[in-house]
Amino acid sequence: MKFMAKKRPKLRFIAISGTTDVTENLYVYEYGNDMIVVDCGVGFPDADMLGVDLVIPDFTYIRQNKNKLRGIVITHGHEDHLGAVPFLLREVDAPVFATKLTAGFIEDKLVDYEFRGKKVNVFDPEKDTVDLGAFHVSPFRVSHSVPDAVGLCINTPEGNIFHVPDYKFDWTPVDGRPFDIQRAVMLASKGALALASDSLGSTHPGHTESEKKIEKILDIIINNASQRIFFTTISSNISRMQQAINIAAKTGRQVAFAGRSVEQKAKTARDLGYLHYPNEIEIPLKKAMSKKKDEVMIIISGSYGQSGSALYRASTGEHDLLEVESGDTVIFSGDPAPPGTKANVDTLVDHLLQIGADVHYYDMQEDLHVSGHGSQEDIRLLFGLIRPKYFIPIGGTVRHMRGYSAMAQEMGAKASDVFELPPGGIVEFSNGVGQKAGAVSVHDVLVDGTEIGDVGKVVLRDRHILSQEGIVVSIVQIAKSTNKLDGAVEIVSRGFVFERKRKDLLNLAAKHLEKELGGRKYVNQQMVRDEAPRILGKFFFKETGRQPMIVPVVIET
Amino acid sequence: MKFMAKKRPKLRFIAISGTTDVTENLYVYEYGNDMIVVDCGVGFPDADMLGVDLVIPDFTYIRQNKNKLRGIVITHGHEDHLGAVPFLLREVDAPVFATKLTAGFIEDKLVDYEFRGKKVNVFDPEKDTVDLGAFHVSPFRVSHSVPDAVGLCINTPEGNIFHVPDYKFDWTPVDGRPFDIQRAVMLASKGALALASDSLGSTHPGHTESEKKIEKILDIIINNASQRIFFTTISSNISRMQQAINIAAKTGRQVAFAGRSVEQKAKTARDLGYLHYPNEIEIPLKKAMSKKKDEVMIIISGSYGQSGSALYRASTGEHDLLEVESGDTVIFSGDPAPPGTKANVDTLVDHLLQIGADVHYYDMQEDLHVSGHGSQEDIRLLFGLIRPKYFIPIGGTVRHMRGYSAMAQEMGAKASDVFELPPGGIVEFSNGVGQKAGAVSVHDVLVDGTEIGDVGKVVLRDRHILSQEGIVVSIVQIAKSTNKLDGAVEIVSRGFVFERKRKDLLNLAAKHLEKELGGRKYVNQQMVRDEAPRILGKFFFKETGRQPMIVPVVIET
Repeated sequence: MKFMAKKRPKLRFIAISGTTDVTENLYVYEYGNDMIVVDCGVGFPDADMLGVDLVIPDFTYIRQNKNKLRGIVITHGHEDHLGAVPFLLREVDAPVFATKLTAGFIEDKLVDYEFRGKKVNVFDPEKDTVDLGAFHVSPFRVSHSVPDAVGLCINTPEGNIFHVPDYKFDWTPVDGRPFDIQRAVMLASKGALALASDSLGSTHPGHTESEKKIEKILDIIINNASQRIFFTTISSNISRMQQAINIAAKTGRQVAFAGRSVEQKAKTARDLGYLHYPNEIEIPLKKAMSKKKDEVMIIISGSYGQSGSALYRASTGEHDLLEVESGDTVIFSGDPAPPGTKANVDTLVDHLLQIGADVHYYDMQEDLHVSGHGSQEDIRLLFGLIRPKYFIPIGGTVRHMRGYSAMAQEMGAKASDVFELPPGGIVEFSNGVGQKAGAVSVHDVLVDGTEIGDVGKVVLRDRHILSQEGIVVSIVQIAKSTNKLDGAVEIVSRGFVFERKRKDLLNLAAKHLEKELGGRKYVNQQMVRDEAPRILGKFFFKETGRQPMIVPVVIET
Repeated sequence: MKFMAKKRPKLRFIAISGTTDVTENLYVYEYGNDMIVVDCGVGFPDADMLGVDLVIPDFTYIRQNKNKLRGIVITHGHEDHLGAVPFLLREVDAPVFATKLTAGFIEDKLVDYEFRGKKVNVFDPEKDTVDLGAFHVSPFRVSHSVPDAVGLCINTPEGNIFHVPDYKFDWTPVDGRPFDIQRAVMLASKGALALASDSLGSTHPGHTESEKKIEKILDIIINNASQRIFFTTISSNISRMQQAINIAAKTGRQVAFAGRSVEQKAKTARDLGYLHYPNEIEIPLKKAMSKKKDEVMIIISGSYGQSGSALYRASTGEHDLLEVESGDTVIFSGDPAPPGTKANVDTLVDHLLQIGADVHYYDMQEDLHVSGHGSQEDIRLLFGLIRPKYFIPIGGTVRHMRGYSAMAQEMGAKASDVFELPPGGIVEFSNGVGQKAGAVSVHDVLVDGTEIGDVGKVVLRDRHILSQEGIVVSIVQIAKSTNKLDGAVEIVSRGFVFERKRKDLLNLAAKHLEKELGGRKYVNQQMVRDEAPRILGKFFFKETGRQPMIVPVVIET
């Protein structure tokens, strides 16, 4: 047994993910034997992650240090901040903390993932501080596009770190609860060692506008609608729903909810006191089509034009209960920001216009959406309020970190005071001095179906080739006794040419392969496995200019 | 032999494609025994057209009436207006007409498609009229993002139809040749039965700005650059190149061209007198890296961030001659408009920033790009100049046709005077009256490799499943004599699970299938073909939550 001089630990901030890809937010704070996780979100697959449902953060480091984990703190109710909680809880056991609405959304999700009964600890952002070992976490309210969002002042033995993900300064929010500047400033007045905060708006000039702005145009559209109204926004945007419901009620319309995500989130929000309307305003969905057309508004999922969504199905005749008809009004109150969504929204809008609907959408220069993220002036204001010594841009990309760093420097920071971190990047704080300290090794963990992490480079590469060129399977039988081909070569293809129409081509290919292999003195399994793809690849490229994946199957008879 | 009263033919306008998908422009004018084609462009595959290289218009109607075809008139040098000319010329023989630069671009393309020697007939948009049977086509100059673009006044026995694809009103274009309003108005003064014109800007308020606007910011960026400059724009944007070259020359830099499309288009444009610079300005690409860093600008392809492009390769170390280094300046002078390009540009910009390059791109609120398409005020101005009786929106989507129609109606047209046409849609004009007259049947023709039109719904559906779920091939041998399984079932998979890691799963599946089929009294080919996909599908879904395509191969021994 050795005795070592007890060394004062360093405070470590680890950006497991969330600094370079906007989504998949997960940050670790570690001090000696204590560790907390802030946010635990999913990412969305890139266009080249074919067939992948979700991307989740790499939990390796957390798993390796799970005995230190004192708690998981979630800042707000968006998927990219809470969506991976069930996956993390499968690997570690730790209490989860959030505001009331966020906790409700997490618990709904936990039920979906068969964690029924697991409770989230609710904190009050106006007065609570949560003690988690060496960390004392004081939340304060921020404005965002989901209610009940918070920033955190994390008191550590090295000082206060302010962790402020997605926020904006909205002085007239729908729920009447703006950014709690008093509490943030009070907390900051005791000193701010560092600020880790949202960088997504750092290339966007000006100040992000208030949710209030939307009300005027919404009022006009809804007042002018003569038939049914279909209103769509992302399901967590409870305030946007509240605005629509308020105007609907004022104009004598009742409201129905359509689509699982919208129904679930609206119900949870109302049960918890974040969505307000008298009982008589809501009607069951199955009554929506039998009411007088100008007396109903349907709040419906599908704001990204997703092909399986309720709005999509209502517009294509695939929905059991709903149908968008000529003269109906459809309002898209959202921004098709995630990759690929714009094309889907465009297709759906075109389709709705062809039906004869009056469609209001992003491209009409109506004020139907404002961002939930602060722009440059919001970011400058936060910097001015917190006055941190060090800066860590989060929730953006390399471009946004660069813009954020430039702004911090304009306000007096040194370039070395801003830490632009790669995934896994570490900042260590010791005696009031922060510096980069390498990175823990992380990689994207892909979820496909119920399997986690088993889809990797090889599978994705194969899916890419299959998607572009299709596949050809050649079945060759070899007589063991003679080392010669036995019987005819069979060729099966999918996604390459239409088999029924190009039987000629596939037959020619089979004959060609038979001839090439039949000419050999002898053949064996390995030889055919090597040669068949080469021979067929050349043949098909010459005939079609394409290069399908070729899988040789060899059977010894 | 019967004698019929000779009936005066109707003038038919047929939008083969180009009214609902922005690209793939092809319009037919037909009168009695005369027919002309205006524009013949390619489309770009939708995200769900997996593996498809190009989309071309449906030539069926033209082929069926090819004896009537008097000529093909191309309005400007963009792919979506001229890219399908070689494909059409494989099916019909007709003279092609265009301005000098457009003709140069078409001839370059014809060489690529082995039509060496085919000449395009050049017209002068300031004075020529081309007589094509019943049609007398008078071009007039318009401004666009490629030089030498024209609109057409097509004189027909029914009156004048103005056909004005992509245009804007730019009074200070780089080449000093603005929209030839005089000629357009002179032609219109003789009456305008109809106007078929660009609708893409119809949801964009205001007036599209002049190319001139870009010069100021370009000047500042280039003057401040201390190392090499990489300048990228789409290869047909000769004026943008001219601006970059002018400023480079002024600041003591020589210019090299990189990337096949940029090199080819710049050479053709210079040879034909559309790109001007003294010989000593250009240096060969292989000298670009050996010159002093602040004395060179490289005009390079890759403005959409395409992974095979010269700029992409120069930034990843894959380019033989070029490398972007820390401190270099990279200027993206373009708008990542086509679907999917923004994500590619973002990835490339992030990568360049990480290298340490000074990157100027679309999101910086610098004026690095202006659209080539007129906005609402340009469209109103054109309506006012031409004063047509009927309106046909082209070159947009359903959304843009709707916006265009609204503007025409604001300026006094009746709703029934505006023809929003589906692909193949026909308008017939007779005695000065126009009306919709159904549609010819058309479908998208997909080009994949060297094959045209053989990729259809089945192949695309298969590619989609393959891309999302992968494929499993089960090989089952049946002994003919006993009607029982013979030997072990073999399972091969691609893009489903990583074979080497999940050998266990595939073995289990094979055993499962053997057990299920082995339990039958007898099996035969058809039975296994029907049952294997069902049995394996259920097994894999239970184990992985995925649904790979399952292809049963059955061999009788």
